[in-house]
Amino acid sequence: MSKNRETARATLENLYRIFTIPEAPDSTLGGIDQAISRDVAGFLQTHIVALERSLDEIEADFSSSIIPEEPTYVSEYTEFVKEKLVAQSVHTAAPGFIGHMTSALPYFMLPLSRLMTALNQNLVKVETSKAFTPLERQVLAMLHRLVYQNDNAFYDRWVHNSEHALGAFCSGGTIANVTALWVARNRLCSPSGTFRGIAHEGLARSLKHLGCDGLAILVSRRGHYSLGKAADLLGLGRDNLTKIDTDANNRIDLKQLKETCRRLQDENIRPLALVGIAGTTETGNVDPLQEMADFASELGCHFHVDAAWGGPTLFSERNRYLLDGISRADSVTLDAHKQLYVPMGAGMVVFKDPTAQSAIEHHAAYILRHGSKDLGSHTLEGSRPGKALLVHAGLSIIGRKGYELLIDLGIERAMTYAEMIRQHPDFELTSTPQLNILTYRYCPEHVQQTLLRASEEQRLRVNLLLDQVNQLLQKDQREAGKTFVSRTRLQVSPYAEEITVLRVVLANPLTTDEILESVLAEQCLIVLQQDIQALLKQVETICDEIDGPPVEVCAEVN
Amino acid sequence: MSKNRETARATLENLYRIFTIPEAPDSTLGGIDQAISRDVAGFLQTHIVALERSLDEIEADFSSSIIPEEPTYVSEYTEFVKEKLVAQSVHTAAPGFIGHMTSALPYFMLPLSRLMTALNQNLVKVETSKAFTPLERQVLAMLHRLVYQNDNAFYDRWVHNSEHALGAFCSGGTIANVTALWVARNRLCSPSGTFRGIAHEGLARSLKHLGCDGLAILVSRRGHYSLGKAADLLGLGRDNLTKIDTDANNRIDLKQLKETCRRLQDENIRPLALVGIAGTTETGNVDPLQEMADFASELGCHFHVDAAWGGPTLFSERNRYLLDGISRADSVTLDAHKQLYVPMGAGMVVFKDPTAQSAIEHHAAYILRHGSKDLGSHTLEGSRPGKALLVHAGLSIIGRKGYELLIDLGIERAMTYAEMIRQHPDFELTSTPQLNILTYRYCPEHVQQTLLRASEEQRLRVNLLLDQVNQLLQKDQREAGKTFVSRTRLQVSPYAEEITVLRVVLANPLTTDEILESVLAEQCLIVLQQDIQALLKQVETICDEIDGPPVEVCAEVN
Repeated sequence: MSKNRETARATLENLYRIFTIPEAPDSTLGGIDQAISRDVAGFLQTHIVALERSLDEIEADFSSSIIPEEPTYVSEYTEFVKEKLVAQSVHTAAPGFIGHMTSALPYFMLPLSRLMTALNQNLVKVETSKAFTPLERQVLAMLHRLVYQNDNAFYDRWVHNSEHALGAFCSGGTIANVTALWVARNRLCSPSGTFRGIAHEGLARSLKHLGCDGLAILVSRRGHYSLGKAADLLGLGRDNLTKIDTDANNRIDLKQLKETCRRLQDENIRPLALVGIAGTTETGNVDPLQEMADFASELGCHFHVDAAWGGPTLFSERNRYLLDGISRADSVTLDAHKQLYVPMGAGMVVFKDPTAQSAIEHHAAYILRHGSKDLGSHTLEGSRPGKALLVHAGLSIIGRKGYELLIDLGIERAMTYAEMIRQHPDFELTSTPQLNILTYRYCPEHVQQTLLRASEEQRLRVNLLLDQVNQLLQKDQREAGKTFVSRTRLQVSPYAEEITVLRVVLANPLTTDEILESVLAEQCLIVLQQDIQALLKQVETICDEIDGPPVEVCAEVN
Repeated sequence: MSKNRETARATLENLYRIFTIPEAPDSTLGGIDQAISRDVAGFLQTHIVALERSLDEIEADFSSSIIPEEPTYVSEYTEFVKEKLVAQSVHTAAPGFIGHMTSALPYFMLPLSRLMTALNQNLVKVETSKAFTPLERQVLAMLHRLVYQNDNAFYDRWVHNSEHALGAFCSGGTIANVTALWVARNRLCSPSGTFRGIAHEGLARSLKHLGCDGLAILVSRRGHYSLGKAADLLGLGRDNLTKIDTDANNRIDLKQLKETCRRLQDENIRPLALVGIAGTTETGNVDPLQEMADFASELGCHFHVDAAWGGPTLFSERNRYLLDGISRADSVTLDAHKQLYVPMGAGMVVFKDPTAQSAIEHHAAYILRHGSKDLGSHTLEGSRPGKALLVHAGLSIIGRKGYELLIDLGIERAMTYAEMIRQHPDFELTSTPQLNILTYRYCPEHVQQTLLRASEEQRLRVNLLLDQVNQLLQKDQREAGKTFVSRTRLQVSPYAEEITVLRVVLANPLTTDEILESVLAEQCLIVLQQDIQALLKQVETICDEIDGPPVEVCAEVN
């Protein structure tokens, strides 16, 4: 018993140490910490093992479901993290990893993130965030102004208004999109007469009140998958997320959009929201926002723009015209952890009408009281960290012109890469970049030519084989660990069917033209592998079939 | 023109520096970074100014809505952050700040957070997180096992299963609660016959399919406000979040629960979910989970337990009995940024049935493909940071026994504080702690006694005045900046009306009994202020009225 008590006291003392005594600089964790401070790029380069272990093997290191009974020394745990986790993580900041939306981070983001963590503010209410609340409100105003360009008087009136907020900080673009459509739904089904609004009475009664059989969200086939989640979550049903075909440039087909709306009206389905995309996730294209705004206003429905990717294009004097019409949107999603170069976990939605979020306002007895400036009364999430600091830092330190340079650089680089692909005999460009995202596939030039003459059946067979080629190519390249592109499936003219394509995102300012050349060069080497060559041989056989038997060269002539 | 180009080149070079050259150790930001590494408690103590400036004044520093055109030097920006933001933030880690759910953090959380930020993984998919995906799956399994205590064979089968997940990481408890109820809703309205399920057909058709007029969520009046948001968001309507009265210990009244269910059935409203609370936000009480589980099973409805606060009580051999029945819940919410001592922004939900989340499963062409182990196919959020590392670190370094000590300490301290309040002549304990949260108010003992004899009208007048006293007391204490308690409104026996109470959360292991004594002592000083004394004088007048004229002491007797 007394021994037990002694052990308990010793454990308690150790516990206090964890809360009161920092890691020694010469400890394992202290060492890692300093290595990251000194040179994060070097740290990542050294500690992430390039060559991929299989996921099965990695899982073996994370298989126990038992919470350890006894404490572990920080040093011992750190060794584990170094060897089993860090070594087997993804070098998302590497300039040759151009397949995803995560870039290298500006250096100042790291110490400021630590400051944010150390302060551990909770933005749900002023009482646990104080100056961070005005800071977040300011950041929302800055992004609101970037999009809507109202005047000083407007912002003076609304930025610190205790009844309203110009938008909401979110953990990411998905919550931002959900918030926007939640607001749209609740505004369409707002209280009127004896109907107390959807927030109180629910969706079924709202439809009865509106006299319709459903509410539809309309977006192009390139819309982000979060919109499907939103349609499900909000009770509309995925059937009512109506996906419209796109033109050859992955932009919504306005004619089909209008026809679909007419069809929906015939079915007594009311359009809740049009969603325009400013930078499709897969191809980086921008919908015709002006025309969509016109049509939304004609329909009298909410116009949301998902600018999670492309929003920061507004920083660029040269390229912002691509987003013309965005200021007519009722709500706009922006992701700070994408092209604002903030670490993972920061999205935003801004609303044209500063009173829009009243439709989702909520209160409680212990916080978010009426008249308080607590931001939590207008957000989907509750407790939230002070990520606004990192957005504020980016906007201040990099500045409008700095972001402009980053945006322009990425778009130029995408044009350069597109040109490299066009010039290369073995690759086919499958989407022309408007912003800094493009797609292509491995498909030798003569196969591209032959496919134009192929029957549908022949073309389908060839494309199925090429799908396998590109899938293997992408997988092998990822596993080799030197460079990385992603892949998706797209319907791409001149083909009627979906094909597998490689996808490239060019937002890392450290990605050079030489790196782009090396990515293509590596892909040319990978296709020489036996399994891919076997597939390509089958492609050649079908091509021969399409072009007829090769002209026989008569050996006897000479 | 050439000058413009020169400027552009210079800006570009500066931009590259931001991405490639770390802050010098002797720079302002480098200095802050090292100060935090060396001694975060000292840093916070020194840099956060105790005395409160008014929010209006602070807002003036964050009023511009214009994004700066030109870049700012990191050093200059850091000075701004130090003076205007850090100085005016809240010292959430201070051991005397016992009014909110944020504690001091274990030291190792800071360097590991930096590591997490530097790695910048995205947990939506394996391609951008690799080993972090098995790590997160392991953490979900550990928490699942803490709650459900299945055997090894169960976890071996499910932890890394590519079709399913044992739960979901979330930005916080709100998203966790929403996810749980989303799953519950979609499972109740699952595909059957020609009905393709609510995810596709939406809520209105689902009600038709089920043959009912609404779906209700039942929870006690102490339920977290996020449940109201969930009812709204999911299309059920807040009217269908049915709030049940509580007993004297803030636990759901089972009799009323059952009566209400009968009433709902008469109204053709179907119970979707019962929500039990394991640690109410305001008073830390735990619902009778066994009886609720029995009743949920009788109803055949989903049983969710919101254990965002109290979940980690399961670590304690002595106290875990308080949560008896939690293993019968279909889903359980846990917040890592509360009693797992992880920085802000980490919640979780676990599901008893590992296939439950199929009801909200989603896929896309470029990620979350069928058969992949991408966690994003079962989460409400999309891109997410690698916060699982910090939970994993806590569970490993602190261990089950370490958390047990923290939990037991907090509960003991709450008992101690409750006793201090009971013993004190000027305070009234308004909720008896089961866990480490309690409420009380300033109310002198003789007023408490007199109130028992008062008419309803007299009691209401006194309580209204005491509400003002306690509101001012809490505000003045917060503004003085030395210590902090929060406040809420509760219906507390023997009173029939809601009254304003002070709320205390005792989770910071650095909070000592001496600090608790000093909190009460400070409150006794604050009530001496003129405005509060004026209110108390009015209270005395009403008390005199209740007790009749004071017995006159005849001066002439002696």
